[in-house]
Amino acid sequence: MFSDIKFNKEVPVYIQIKDYIKEMILGGMLQSGEKLPSTREMSSIMKVSRNTIIYAYEFLQDEGFILIKKGKGAFVSQIHVEMQEKWNVNWSTLVNDYAKDSERLDIVKHEDKWEKGMISFKSIAPDENLFDVEEFKKAFLNRMSIEGKKILNYGYAQGYKPLIEYLLKYMKNKGVNTEGKDILITNGFTEGFDIILSSLTKAKDKILCENPTHNTAIKIMKLHGLCIEGVDMDIDGINIKKLEEKLQKDKFALSYFIPSYHNPTGIVMSPEKRVQLYKLLRKYNVPIIEDGFNEELRYTGAHVAPIAALCGEGNGLIYIGSFSKILFPGIRIGWILGDKNIIGYLESVKRSRNIHTSFLDQAVFYDYLQCGNFEKYIKKARKVYREKYEFAVECAKKYISNGQVIGEGGLHIFVKLNGIDARKLLKKCYDKGVIFTPGDIFYTDDKGFDTLRLGFSRVTKEEIERGFKIIGDETKSLMKKN
Amino acid sequence: MFSDIKFNKEVPVYIQIKDYIKEMILGGMLQSGEKLPSTREMSSIMKVSRNTIIYAYEFLQDEGFILIKKGKGAFVSQIHVEMQEKWNVNWSTLVNDYAKDSERLDIVKHEDKWEKGMISFKSIAPDENLFDVEEFKKAFLNRMSIEGKKILNYGYAQGYKPLIEYLLKYMKNKGVNTEGKDILITNGFTEGFDIILSSLTKAKDKILCENPTHNTAIKIMKLHGLCIEGVDMDIDGINIKKLEEKLQKDKFALSYFIPSYHNPTGIVMSPEKRVQLYKLLRKYNVPIIEDGFNEELRYTGAHVAPIAALCGEGNGLIYIGSFSKILFPGIRIGWILGDKNIIGYLESVKRSRNIHTSFLDQAVFYDYLQCGNFEKYIKKARKVYREKYEFAVECAKKYISNGQVIGEGGLHIFVKLNGIDARKLLKKCYDKGVIFTPGDIFYTDDKGFDTLRLGFSRVTKEEIERGFKIIGDETKSLMKKN
Repeated sequence: MFSDIKFNKEVPVYIQIKDYIKEMILGGMLQSGEKLPSTREMSSIMKVSRNTIIYAYEFLQDEGFILIKKGKGAFVSQIHVEMQEKWNVNWSTLVNDYAKDSERLDIVKHEDKWEKGMISFKSIAPDENLFDVEEFKKAFLNRMSIEGKKILNYGYAQGYKPLIEYLLKYMKNKGVNTEGKDILITNGFTEGFDIILSSLTKAKDKILCENPTHNTAIKIMKLHGLCIEGVDMDIDGINIKKLEEKLQKDKFALSYFIPSYHNPTGIVMSPEKRVQLYKLLRKYNVPIIEDGFNEELRYTGAHVAPIAALCGEGNGLIYIGSFSKILFPGIRIGWILGDKNIIGYLESVKRSRNIHTSFLDQAVFYDYLQCGNFEKYIKKARKVYREKYEFAVECAKKYISNGQVIGEGGLHIFVKLNGIDARKLLKKCYDKGVIFTPGDIFYTDDKGFDTLRLGFSRVTKEEIERGFKIIGDETKSLMKKN
Repeated sequence: MFSDIKFNKEVPVYIQIKDYIKEMILGGMLQSGEKLPSTREMSSIMKVSRNTIIYAYEFLQDEGFILIKKGKGAFVSQIHVEMQEKWNVNWSTLVNDYAKDSERLDIVKHEDKWEKGMISFKSIAPDENLFDVEEFKKAFLNRMSIEGKKILNYGYAQGYKPLIEYLLKYMKNKGVNTEGKDILITNGFTEGFDIILSSLTKAKDKILCENPTHNTAIKIMKLHGLCIEGVDMDIDGINIKKLEEKLQKDKFALSYFIPSYHNPTGIVMSPEKRVQLYKLLRKYNVPIIEDGFNEELRYTGAHVAPIAALCGEGNGLIYIGSFSKILFPGIRIGWILGDKNIIGYLESVKRSRNIHTSFLDQAVFYDYLQCGNFEKYIKKARKVYREKYEFAVECAKKYISNGQVIGEGGLHIFVKLNGIDARKLLKKCYDKGVIFTPGDIFYTDDKGFDTLRLGFSRVTKEEIERGFKIIGDETKSLMKKN
């Protein structure tokens, strides 16, 4: 006993001794009332300094595991751990439909997984090698020295005030009138969208969106029991005629659109179409949720204002913003901009969900942004991604010659194969060490079986060329079979 | 034009110039195709270096607001911002019952607010002056140098692996058998509880809990439409007889308990009672959600194991842990420990809610914990809070002599006045500059109108004495009136 303790290098020794003795007490190897070896004895048994043992004993007493009696020694406290008869609950039968659907629709759990050595075009996360970690460190240290203690304690559900102010100005700089509007900070787009649907819809409500659209948005809409009406897209965005047909026929609770570098097609909705869309939804009084996804990753052409910029002082649109697709997605910061009144409700929902988004992250991110780092970063990132984007398009055209390449920017391209089943293709490519995202998961109906999304942000140019060639070759071999 | 720009010190000058020109373009003061002053001219108008202007113009071109034609100058791009007719949506009529209830039950919005100069006993947040910010900084810098880029990119819904491992060991050190169990990292207790109820209950389900209990838990149970059955408490925890009566009468989906330093009463459920409670719920097969609230803030006596330690390899209990009431609540990190199977479902729900909890925060927190900082911190904090607790009890007994003081630890005491309305008392105290939390918000029925919770973590001893005296005096004056 005691002499068999093994130390590791990562954890302070007195903590390891404390935990070791705790384990013996909890496991019943040391009984209540039993006397521990003196600190001198224990120090020679464990071959550590006596001070270390004294320190460990002190902690054990603090935590109520032993009692040190002056001049008499250390004794194990009255610890009650009576293991009870085993109780087996069959959780699978207890979870409700919401949890079951969450699991069923969780593509991370059910899609093919990347294995070492494979080329993966699944990710559209930013390339972390572009992150300016040094500037982020500076922002952290600066914020900590200004208000470190404060930002480590509880904050406010709405968000960190200076960040809210920064983002209001940021939205103004996109041409948005922020009069009468406010911002709620969320844990990324996903939470923003989930909170909005939780607050504004009920099961069986109808919601309009582009078809295809962001798969996470589809998942969340399904989890809320909504009837999703997808509207087909043209090369410059949603088909306005089909949109109007749907609006004439049905009553919709909400609509959801990704006008810039649309996920998964990469299409930028033209300014004219934005105006048409806005007018139509206003006419039928269906509030718009605009997803500002990747708006910052413009590679060419003139600035295109978000639909939110068309509203003026009107309040029929809620904008969800996030830098997560470009910068530091690990800290999960997004925002909702909308009418003050609705933000008030969403704030209470946010508080009931998780009190608030990390104040540390919000404060550090604010510090990082306001020094102009974001502008510098986006300049660099845009250059790198643009080059990669152009290379990816070129390779796709060259190697996947049966496919039609869609998309004007962002971190991915979308390919429409003419009638070839993308899941069959994936299976064959998987065997050759290449994976991608089959396009069907983005569709609200059964279309899209012959489409795929190819994310290029985290692969090298060499991998793009090699991977696309494999996809192209497999496409051709599938064509022959047809 | 241009010469009226005003610079501030916080933001780089080129960004201010860029934003200023953007605003003019978006506001229509600069028209599409219009030529901007040359960089030389602009530099003399704005009284900044020419390089600054060149830099600002470059950014404007990058963002698509201007086009720089070599040898010809800079021209405003084709920007379409057509402000549309105002669209007014009446959001208050569109929000659903869930959002309305969230707002209605949001005590931050509806309870009396602290004003400058007041003594507030409302908070039970930790005193941030005890935080060891230097150690936290070290942990941050260490983690950043090891894997800074990685933890700023997307992580996993379940959580940061080393933190999960640390917490599994931490739970083992409380006597919990972690065989067949797993951990999900959440944004604090609140998110953990919300995710569990979202996954395991449906509206109208019955849930058991102590009466009184944590007000945020009551809010979340109500928001899920659950029928809450509160069981009265004795001085050593829940009344077992009353608990069994309820179990005999009704079928319950879940039960929720706070066995240690119970909120709001501060009662520690005795080890014997823990065993009785566990056996009863196993008998009736009602899964337990154990809230590990403030378990760490033991001031006296032997270690009391959580109910989770009674389960052995059984899986009928889900434990929710959080350090938020003691350490760094601003980063919002908590965890759920439970059967691997149920954690799998909860993980998918977490992913559909907000992808994952900040990986930066999880990684830094892990680094902080594994160096033994938590043990050192809790030793210091326990000493400070214990002293304050004892002082608060002493003052309460001295000044609020009509009340019965309940509670054995934690960051608050609970006072039962004999028949005096705590809301009337609050009104009178408010006028004298003292606020506290009226106890009724913790009750699942109409009891508790004559109780109050007094948090002492963020007030000085002097404020405790002065504040409690005011409460005592007002109590006496209300007694006389009765």
